[in-house]
Amino acid sequence: MKGVCIATYRSYDDKADFNKKALSIAVGLTVGSWTELPEAQKAEMEKHLGKVLSVYVHEPAGAAPGERYADIQISYPDINFSRDLPALLVTVFGKLSMDGKIKLLDLDVSDNFASAFPGPAFGLDGVRDLLGVHDRPLLMSIFKSVVGHNLANLKDQFYMQALGGVDLIKDDEILFENPLTPLEKRVEACMDAARLAEAETGQKLLYAVNLTGPTSKLAANARKAVQAGANALLFNVLAYGYDVLHELSSDKSINVPIAAHPAMAGAMYPSPHYGFSAPLLLGKLMRLAGADLVLFPSPYGSVVMPKEENLAVKDALTTPLHGLRTSFPVPSAGIHPGLVPLILKDFGTDVVVNAGGGIHGHAMGTAAGGQAFRQAIGAVMDGVPLRDAASEPGNEPLQAAINAWGIKE
Amino acid sequence: MKGVCIATYRSYDDKADFNKKALSIAVGLTVGSWTELPEAQKAEMEKHLGKVLSVYVHEPAGAAPGERYADIQISYPDINFSRDLPALLVTVFGKLSMDGKIKLLDLDVSDNFASAFPGPAFGLDGVRDLLGVHDRPLLMSIFKSVVGHNLANLKDQFYMQALGGVDLIKDDEILFENPLTPLEKRVEACMDAARLAEAETGQKLLYAVNLTGPTSKLAANARKAVQAGANALLFNVLAYGYDVLHELSSDKSINVPIAAHPAMAGAMYPSPHYGFSAPLLLGKLMRLAGADLVLFPSPYGSVVMPKEENLAVKDALTTPLHGLRTSFPVPSAGIHPGLVPLILKDFGTDVVVNAGGGIHGHAMGTAAGGQAFRQAIGAVMDGVPLRDAASEPGNEPLQAAINAWGIKE
Repeated sequence: MKGVCIATYRSYDDKADFNKKALSIAVGLTVGSWTELPEAQKAEMEKHLGKVLSVYVHEPAGAAPGERYADIQISYPDINFSRDLPALLVTVFGKLSMDGKIKLLDLDVSDNFASAFPGPAFGLDGVRDLLGVHDRPLLMSIFKSVVGHNLANLKDQFYMQALGGVDLIKDDEILFENPLTPLEKRVEACMDAARLAEAETGQKLLYAVNLTGPTSKLAANARKAVQAGANALLFNVLAYGYDVLHELSSDKSINVPIAAHPAMAGAMYPSPHYGFSAPLLLGKLMRLAGADLVLFPSPYGSVVMPKEENLAVKDALTTPLHGLRTSFPVPSAGIHPGLVPLILKDFGTDVVVNAGGGIHGHAMGTAAGGQAFRQAIGAVMDGVPLRDAASEPGNEPLQAAINAWGIKE
Repeated sequence: MKGVCIATYRSYDDKADFNKKALSIAVGLTVGSWTELPEAQKAEMEKHLGKVLSVYVHEPAGAAPGERYADIQISYPDINFSRDLPALLVTVFGKLSMDGKIKLLDLDVSDNFASAFPGPAFGLDGVRDLLGVHDRPLLMSIFKSVVGHNLANLKDQFYMQALGGVDLIKDDEILFENPLTPLEKRVEACMDAARLAEAETGQKLLYAVNLTGPTSKLAANARKAVQAGANALLFNVLAYGYDVLHELSSDKSINVPIAAHPAMAGAMYPSPHYGFSAPLLLGKLMRLAGADLVLFPSPYGSVVMPKEENLAVKDALTTPLHGLRTSFPVPSAGIHPGLVPLILKDFGTDVVVNAGGGIHGHAMGTAAGGQAFRQAIGAVMDGVPLRDAASEPGNEPLQAAINAWGIKE
């Protein structure tokens, strides 16, 4: 809608008059009071007034206590807030977040608001262009362990992962500035390993180094990393705020893709009663703020998110949104090669298959772990059942992976 | 404990082996793997290894499904993370926040970690010093409505509040940079009103103007506000991240107290199963990051927090913590003069009584609304029952407030 941002809430209450509640939100979070305003002032204030767009009460016969809720849509005039995410979020879910059981399900911002957001500087297609890979899902791997390891060890780990044919390698999100593997030296060592591996595999690779430190130093740290050769960044967005990602991704001097890590997201999305929906928290807001890739808990592993919610996150990252580039979905955790057919069935080919244990835990070693994934991806793209592909010559890594972890379809 | 930060979690699970789970957290979020490490490497990695300090399983006989939980304490070596709050939070509750029903109850940081945090630059005593008030609770008021109003209107509202004898006036947290009342002009208009009122009341006053805008411009905006005459700031900490507050409060050129608004906190504390405990989110972390005053939902109003949790927030703000200054607790929402005896019983005298409707809704007007609160505070400090005080000559405002809202003891 023109000139307004629309928030959709789910509000739980066994008895509330939800229409009244919706009206009090729409007025209370905009002009403050309405009915008591003199008529002359109403004309003046009308353009600032929030409006209730819809109230759907979910109240099945025989609903148990705690089951009654309403989905409420309210429009907030753009004129009330500056065009930044803190202002938008404080307006629509600042005080309101503390007003009983209420969850923010979605936000539809206006074109005018969105025009302040360039979104992903590279996006899904840009990441593919950098890698020169357009015809298959990408493969990302993570280090086995990083804390307490030195540069030589990280370089070794990196090289073995790169040899396996992965497209992206990401730092662990808990690797911060430290004397053993400081940012610039780590980038140099890992990019060295990337070049060594490329000479073997002929394959380009992005290394997403973890961008950390004081907020005011992040842009400078990012530039240091890029200058040292980093060709991507990993960023713990929710520990710093969306606005920081927005500023980093809008900064033309930081000309590499940014992968958003979901660290701390579990404090905000899993409750049915509080917080943000996952598709908003990890989907739409991440994309608006400029994440080129977004990691989120896969529906396959131990850290789970229900599949329906997972696919809604994917949709928020990839369906049309104010002309923004799409962000690469990276469902993570619990991924092994036998899951590749299912991942591609669920997510299509525009997905990053991201693995840790499923690569490092491979019986033939880390490089074979990556190869097993690439063989699985190749088989699915060719329409060959994994079991058949595994018996082809050269595909021993895939066979070993299937022997260890099976196939899940 | 020396050299480690200790996190306390509550983990809900009907069947889990909590000792095993605790161990997997302690290892998984630090060195990654342990039992499979060669002995020689263990010696090297020991100093990075997280340790399980305690596991208390709560499993009453006949517990219904969903009621079984464990409180788990784990120590994380400081050496693993940089001395900033994003690094600490991502380490102890990044990935883990998404691992089932788990809530972060508390964090005890080491003296070494804390030494990077000067904490509140003014704190409770500093705010009292600025106002010259040491012998009673402070009184804060908020504007009736701000969105859509012009400078003249805000100045009027400010003046009427100031006349009532309030000590602090805060902006609405949803007032952002806007053409009607831009930051510097707003500060000038309101501080003008403050001076006019001071000529009447002889009383000093702090105006906490809302600090908003892009993250990288906040420090500059704060300096602009101070230069224009602002003597305090309001800040929506959780929309920007604790680290931003930490940087602002550590900035010597921003030499005014900062009041932390809890906007968005409801997305993170109310669930029993997810997020952060309120005393951590709105207490300890706000203080560590340098909030001089902290607003949080009072146990008296419509936006409620259970009283036990409320007092735990107060304790986190005011009990000894690494030698940091204390932060002023500001329990907010639903406050009227008849609640003052109860507030002071619950919080003691080191509290800011914060009111909106309880001031503007006064039958005799806004100035009388403030006076009624001051009269209530005076009565309680003198040990006079409100009802008796209300009948004293000059205390008509208190009488009118009691007539309207009653007394709650």
